[in-house]
Amino acid sequence: MKNMLVAQSGGPSAAINATITGVIDAGIASDQVGHVYGARNGIKGVLNENFVNLDEVCDTKEKRDLLSVTPAAALGSCRWKLKDPKENAEEFEEIIRILRKNNIGYFVYTGGNDSMDTVYKLSIYCKENNIDDIKVMGAPKTIDNDLGETDHCPGFGSAAKFIATAFTEIACDCFVYDVPSVTIVEVMGRNAGWLTASSALARTEERRVPQLIYLCEKVFDEEKFIEDVNKALEKENNIIVAVSEGVKDATGHYVGEETKSGKEDAFGHKYLSGIGKYLEGLVGNRIGCKVRSVELNILQRCAGYMLSETDIIESRNLGAFAAVSAIRGESGKMSALKRICDDPYQVEIELADLSKIANFEKKVPMEWINEEGNDIKDDLLTYLKPLIQGEVQIPYENGVPRHFIL
Amino acid sequence: MKNMLVAQSGGPSAAINATITGVIDAGIASDQVGHVYGARNGIKGVLNENFVNLDEVCDTKEKRDLLSVTPAAALGSCRWKLKDPKENAEEFEEIIRILRKNNIGYFVYTGGNDSMDTVYKLSIYCKENNIDDIKVMGAPKTIDNDLGETDHCPGFGSAAKFIATAFTEIACDCFVYDVPSVTIVEVMGRNAGWLTASSALARTEERRVPQLIYLCEKVFDEEKFIEDVNKALEKENNIIVAVSEGVKDATGHYVGEETKSGKEDAFGHKYLSGIGKYLEGLVGNRIGCKVRSVELNILQRCAGYMLSETDIIESRNLGAFAAVSAIRGESGKMSALKRICDDPYQVEIELADLSKIANFEKKVPMEWINEEGNDIKDDLLTYLKPLIQGEVQIPYENGVPRHFIL
Repeated sequence: MKNMLVAQSGGPSAAINATITGVIDAGIASDQVGHVYGARNGIKGVLNENFVNLDEVCDTKEKRDLLSVTPAAALGSCRWKLKDPKENAEEFEEIIRILRKNNIGYFVYTGGNDSMDTVYKLSIYCKENNIDDIKVMGAPKTIDNDLGETDHCPGFGSAAKFIATAFTEIACDCFVYDVPSVTIVEVMGRNAGWLTASSALARTEERRVPQLIYLCEKVFDEEKFIEDVNKALEKENNIIVAVSEGVKDATGHYVGEETKSGKEDAFGHKYLSGIGKYLEGLVGNRIGCKVRSVELNILQRCAGYMLSETDIIESRNLGAFAAVSAIRGESGKMSALKRICDDPYQVEIELADLSKIANFEKKVPMEWINEEGNDIKDDLLTYLKPLIQGEVQIPYENGVPRHFIL
Repeated sequence: MKNMLVAQSGGPSAAINATITGVIDAGIASDQVGHVYGARNGIKGVLNENFVNLDEVCDTKEKRDLLSVTPAAALGSCRWKLKDPKENAEEFEEIIRILRKNNIGYFVYTGGNDSMDTVYKLSIYCKENNIDDIKVMGAPKTIDNDLGETDHCPGFGSAAKFIATAFTEIACDCFVYDVPSVTIVEVMGRNAGWLTASSALARTEERRVPQLIYLCEKVFDEEKFIEDVNKALEKENNIIVAVSEGVKDATGHYVGEETKSGKEDAFGHKYLSGIGKYLEGLVGNRIGCKVRSVELNILQRCAGYMLSETDIIESRNLGAFAAVSAIRGESGKMSALKRICDDPYQVEIELADLSKIANFEKKVPMEWINEEGNDIKDDLLTYLKPLIQGEVQIPYENGVPRHFIL
């Protein structure tokens, strides 16, 4: 009987631990799996043989349920790109040696583009070297929602729910004063605008905020932006703007790049502020009204008190599906979501081809962004809406959320 | 039968609307009150006679319950300091004229130091001019917790709960990587460190974060700070620092003031970043490890999905008590909390003297901060703990919290 190993890499999200929990669930439930180990800090933990016995540490459903709603990555993470085995196979040989030493027959790796590249390379290496006793599977994860071959990514729904909620709260705050004001909210996303688009989920019949949305898929024109804000201020006193951290100008450079990174502070460090602060300066200078910027920052990816129930259930199922598929003999694939219907929302889990996923970024389609480039279209809202539905009751202790620490 | 008027001023908080709701509750319940009006945008709304009929708009308990958990200030706010009536009594005459015109006999004003100054001045003016048909009462509100004569302030408990929770989540995020890192979290508070101290509520037996806490009550020494961080890094890989936005150096200047506000950007605007970014630069330069900063920003005061049940109940009761006291003939006072016991937590509501409250800032006592100035003492934790207890179930619609918009 073989053991199972699970690990995680890339940035944290509020739903990774749900996926890990799904793998543990499946491993414990299967009579073909001995132990379920977790490697600490991703593939680095495999190379260092830094394992934790998860079927022991998470032996009750209660513990696993708590793990599934704990944000970030309980097993830790890494940013480690494996070398091409054709140039240097040492790392791969070492991974296989350690997996065999620990009688591991199933290895599930959770992460985004880079992580799927790791899984892909490892599966190719196994195939080319006739290694048949180790099955390698990927499970998707990224708040950026930029993985191909899956309708959406675990972690995105909860981040989107946090962002939409933050915009409703920020709107409550902004509408308090009766002087004209502009609030610029900077949302994560260097190359894909999915998270920024989620701000539109804050809109209700009573209050349509944010009034302006700029995704990084479209060229950002500063003159047009000032024109948009001025027009919006003619209609309403309080304007809220959602902007992707990665918006670029017509030359392909990040907007305000010179100001943002060209200047050095007293210590010789480059100016670290982002697009929000830059546009705050621009509005202050060109329009002159009250203006402020808010960077939602890392709470976007670690707010465990604002989980989408849909996201957490799907994430756990995707982990379990990857694990079960490995037990059934599959290898070199990723568990993925296929949308059957928007309303009522329905998805199926299937296996996707890693070669099409590794190192590819799925962006927001241009047809889902309006012509002017300052809003999203209804089709995108229809896509987004089901992903933030449902709330998760989390346990509290002494007034703060209780987490599972591995 | 006289009518009642309620208004709010100063910055938003997650519990103001609970206090307003308490006033409405009391007004509706009393057979000595006709209508309960709300003035939009504080005292400005009184001067402009911009009223909304709250006993009509909030006629059901369901609506009032929803209002009580809606963040920010549903009636709007203002920053308007009334002139000294001895120099210019025009505004006061106008307020009295409008109140009488609308048959208002009870006026409850909710806010912080400045707002209590407004209530105080108005009550003095009434007394000196033998105006006996209008009773003026204050109800406390400020996330800063810096009002005197009350154990603590409505809105503070919910802000503290949000901050403590954010620190637990940020810890989950920071502990993901195994490389040394410093995360500096900037917390609101120009002159009082209560909110920053609340970060200590994130500490559990398993994880003691933040490791370092700097309140604005103590002189901040950059050399000592770097020393503290280096020492902390000797023990642990991931260091989280809580710092008040208003920390000052030995000369009384805001730390990094020159860098923060002296430099101008491309538009001639001053460098807008806060202490977090400044210390990020300092750590990067002097220690050289991975470092980032997080500004919790306005979510601290408007996160309606992270309410302290204790705070919301107390806030509503304080509003009701101020209203009932006005009906009973009291004037020129503020409803306030007196703590009877820490554990089990017990408070009483009483009336406090406005002359002692107006324009006074209550700071964290020095004996509650450690000698080194990089942590708080247990007595402060004992004071804080009860204020964040209990969670409030809020209604959701389409995946985001539902709010009451007046």
